[in-house]
Amino acid sequence: MQNNTITAPRGFLAAGVRCGIKKSGNLDLGLIVCPTGAKAAAVFTTNKVFGEAVTVSRENIKSHSISAVVVNSGNANACTGYRGLLNALKMCSRTAEQIGTDPWKVLVASTGIIGEQLPIGKIITGISKAAAKISASALPGLDFAKAIMTTDTIPKQAVRRLEISGKKITIAAAVKGAGMIGPNMATMLCFITTDVAITKPLLKRALKDAVGDSFNKLTVDGHQSTNDTAIILASGLSGNRPITSQCPRYKRFAKVLEEVCDDLARQMALDAEGATRMFKVVVKGAATKAEAAKAARAVADYPLVKCAVHGGDPNWGRIICAVGSAGVRLNPDKLSCKLGDITVFKNGRARKFDTKKASKVISQAEHTITVDLGVGNKSDFCYGCDLSKEYVTINAEYHT
Amino acid sequence: MQNNTITAPRGFLAAGVRCGIKKSGNLDLGLIVCPTGAKAAAVFTTNKVFGEAVTVSRENIKSHSISAVVVNSGNANACTGYRGLLNALKMCSRTAEQIGTDPWKVLVASTGIIGEQLPIGKIITGISKAAAKISASALPGLDFAKAIMTTDTIPKQAVRRLEISGKKITIAAAVKGAGMIGPNMATMLCFITTDVAITKPLLKRALKDAVGDSFNKLTVDGHQSTNDTAIILASGLSGNRPITSQCPRYKRFAKVLEEVCDDLARQMALDAEGATRMFKVVVKGAATKAEAAKAARAVADYPLVKCAVHGGDPNWGRIICAVGSAGVRLNPDKLSCKLGDITVFKNGRARKFDTKKASKVISQAEHTITVDLGVGNKSDFCYGCDLSKEYVTINAEYHT
Repeated sequence: MQNNTITAPRGFLAAGVRCGIKKSGNLDLGLIVCPTGAKAAAVFTTNKVFGEAVTVSRENIKSHSISAVVVNSGNANACTGYRGLLNALKMCSRTAEQIGTDPWKVLVASTGIIGEQLPIGKIITGISKAAAKISASALPGLDFAKAIMTTDTIPKQAVRRLEISGKKITIAAAVKGAGMIGPNMATMLCFITTDVAITKPLLKRALKDAVGDSFNKLTVDGHQSTNDTAIILASGLSGNRPITSQCPRYKRFAKVLEEVCDDLARQMALDAEGATRMFKVVVKGAATKAEAAKAARAVADYPLVKCAVHGGDPNWGRIICAVGSAGVRLNPDKLSCKLGDITVFKNGRARKFDTKKASKVISQAEHTITVDLGVGNKSDFCYGCDLSKEYVTINAEYHT
Repeated sequence: MQNNTITAPRGFLAAGVRCGIKKSGNLDLGLIVCPTGAKAAAVFTTNKVFGEAVTVSRENIKSHSISAVVVNSGNANACTGYRGLLNALKMCSRTAEQIGTDPWKVLVASTGIIGEQLPIGKIITGISKAAAKISASALPGLDFAKAIMTTDTIPKQAVRRLEISGKKITIAAAVKGAGMIGPNMATMLCFITTDVAITKPLLKRALKDAVGDSFNKLTVDGHQSTNDTAIILASGLSGNRPITSQCPRYKRFAKVLEEVCDDLARQMALDAEGATRMFKVVVKGAATKAEAAKAARAVADYPLVKCAVHGGDPNWGRIICAVGSAGVRLNPDKLSCKLGDITVFKNGRARKFDTKKASKVISQAEHTITVDLGVGNKSDFCYGCDLSKEYVTINAEYHT
């Protein structure tokens, strides 16, 4: 069986164990190790309040080489002050000790409840347990993907393979995130491994671009968490001639990396808390790309649109309403809207359409809403998901 | 029994009838008449796509004197083009004909489904029926409040009485709005009558200020509809010396008008689609009032906060998260949060608190969330409501 987990690229080991943070007894501690050291890049939350693990990883990412990533779920270690910061540092030092590296070569991430101190004793024991289990095979890779889950219902992974200068390159990733997801990242942790040989600045650029066109286009509930982190580790073990400029080889790598992230973003949308389906909002005819993005997000975030999608209701009035109040330039007499291929609104007027057919389009696992603002030629998009009763149940009952 | 409806101030008659737009057979056409003519002012939606009634009323509000307001529910007459515009004009001319005035002295409003043509024949018949029923007593006033409802579960009215230069002044209002409510007005129709004598510019100013501190502070789902309209009619029949400047008498009137609007805003929050409780978010310690308002709205709009309130869960982490990603200046080391009087977060740290007590606070029909950003001395507020499964049910099943 082909390994399609985070350990698929050469040079990576992983493990996922239960250390006892989650009351459910599910896996809650994950570890990725790159014994030869990896070039690394990361993108973090822009929330002004951020977790202690983010503080530490923001520093450690500056290291020339990263040897490991340690992650716990069930507790976000956010708003925990000096003690929380110390605990994040301890997670790094314990991991370093176990695998024989320096603490500043370890990245750390946490996700879960905000404002509670980590049960650091359990985590320390868990790190030893994980270090004893690390392996390059598929099962520990899957365990890692499971160990980072919170309200996710399924582990989310993606893998892509490509060739660069005759060498096989693998990009693999595991992601968590099911709610509290707004453009510009959210309660989302993403870990990407690859064996490509590339410079650190180019790796960072590729990650930033890929995140910008995938995770940052996804909105579940319009907000961004304190702990968002996307990390990429490149072991360089594929043997390709190192990528040192924005050459065609870089572009191929960057494109496939974006595909991986896009794949994960869609998985997150479909596994969003209570979501039963997702949709893509494409806004064209905008004056600027930023306005297209703003309008697309306004539609994807609008609870009434999300409810209409949930009900399979081709209620384009709510789409038009969201666009009209998005604060972007539009021409009311040229404004148009399509659900899938069905034109429901054209040049500012309702169009007769087959509502049964339109309802079928919307009821698919994924469909596209296209809006033309009629003022320019710029476009952008956003991913959204429906809003169900289960979302409310999950979030009214996930107690602090 | 005291008349606490829209017909309470001297000089106003009203009626509410069923004309057959609503399939339910409920009242769906309302009429307010001021036989002596009223000074009028209005505030309309800022949505770039707006209903045809808004187009017509924006023109007619310029008339020196207004004789009537005609309103239908069940159909928004929005995105209906030339024919829709003609229908809005027909509603005015038919009303004018029935009560013996000019069409440009009639204001018109519509609320309901977007994109369908009005059943104008039914409405024309309805207007005659309503005109035949108009009266200054309480029952027709209540019928008017019922006739403007869509997904509202109860008619919403408010009345206040005050004295100005020894004369009794009454301010009465009826409002509709239960969803699609975001700051800066929403699917909200508000009709206010008063018998005060005041100049038109001051009436307009008082309305604008009152709306700014009430309806514009209320968010149910963060968006604004195509049809929002708030209208005030002043008959001047109370006999007070006319208010012609921003004197203390003006200030007293303006303050009571604001109280009326605040009362209605709270009623709307509590009757918001599926809402079981409401809350006020007060943000202080902000660098500017605008940033305080932005942060307050970010909290009130955040689905995770709305769900936590629904579940009676003192989940302050979500509040802090919303504030942190609101894009306003804050000091993470001074950031504080209170639920009612209970401090749950102080100077960037979680505070031990009695969760049962806090849960009780949140489970009230109304509670206050206070956030201190720790960077300045400006403050503002926003009203919000909880997010329940019923909201989803209502909005997934309200078919186009």
